[in-house]
Amino acid sequence: MSNPTTIPASDGVPFVDTVRDFDAPISAVFKAHVDPDLLAKWLGPRSTSMNITQYNAVTGGSWRYENGDVTNPFSFRGVFHTVEADALIIMTSEFDGAPNQVVISTTTFEEVDGRTRMQAHEVYPSVEARDMALATGMNYGVIEGYERLDELLAA
Amino acid sequence: MSNPTTIPASDGVPFVDTVRDFDAPISAVFKAHVDPDLLAKWLGPRSTSMNITQYNAVTGGSWRYENGDVTNPFSFRGVFHTVEADALIIMTSEFDGAPNQVVISTTTFEEVDGRTRMQAHEVYPSVEARDMALATGMNYGVIEGYERLDELLAA
Repeated sequence: MSNPTTIPASDGVPFVDTVRDFDAPISAVFKAHVDPDLLAKWLGPRSTSMNITQYNAVTGGSWRYENGDVTNPFSFRGVFHTVEADALIIMTSEFDGAPNQVVISTTTFEEVDGRTRMQAHEVYPSVEARDMALATGMNYGVIEGYERLDELLAA
Repeated sequence: MSNPTTIPASDGVPFVDTVRDFDAPISAVFKAHVDPDLLAKWLGPRSTSMNITQYNAVTGGSWRYENGDVTNPFSFRGVFHTVEADALIIMTSEFDGAPNQVVISTTTFEEVDGRTRMQAHEVYPSVEARDMALATGMNYGVIEGYERLDELLAA
């Protein structure tokens, strides 16, 4: 059974905070975030396919992928500000449907009670941009993606 | 005489918004932001010196510099998410005195009444981090830096 995903987003501030535990070692959870072959197996909803064209998950590296179905692919790209193995990823992210509305996320990985706790703090350029992203049903994709990651980690 | 610099920072949101006009063409103002040799001549307060060790102002590029006096150098680094010539710079920035508190800024350049209007929207990871940065007297350095840029553009 999966651990719950909590995604609070308070009124009046442009943040989305996600907390998720995984029943796997930090190194495995971290690797699934920086290795593009693994990432392609879990990120996004089950109904979509991933086409990662660039994913250089090191400090100063860049990334780019398409996620969606064949008739409706969404493009995302960004840069890695900081990548610290088994500990921290700070990266930017831009969805081609919202040009120049760049999100910066800080994701930490830590061991809590023998599990890996992942916490992501996402910061949008405005409260309106945050609310628009939430209105797309983004959280559904995040939750289902983490269920797929559970399965990958258990395989 | 210099144009005024306005730097509003509203309560309760993690933003700093700066607006500044320059009596120079967009291409000159933009170049002074992406050419490290020019940047070193104006960024920061007059009392400090700049040591730029990396400044690759292209989409996906990285930057790093020290700004301060000999006994008290401050280190800054970041990555460029987007650089569009004479139009737009979206970049991250981290001060070594506030590790992992990464700011993302979106700076636009446009012509208004024959002058160049620069608008910078800075987003901090929290309201507290924003207020702490303002408390350092950061704005003093910004205002004086733009006065130095006026002089460079007029030279």
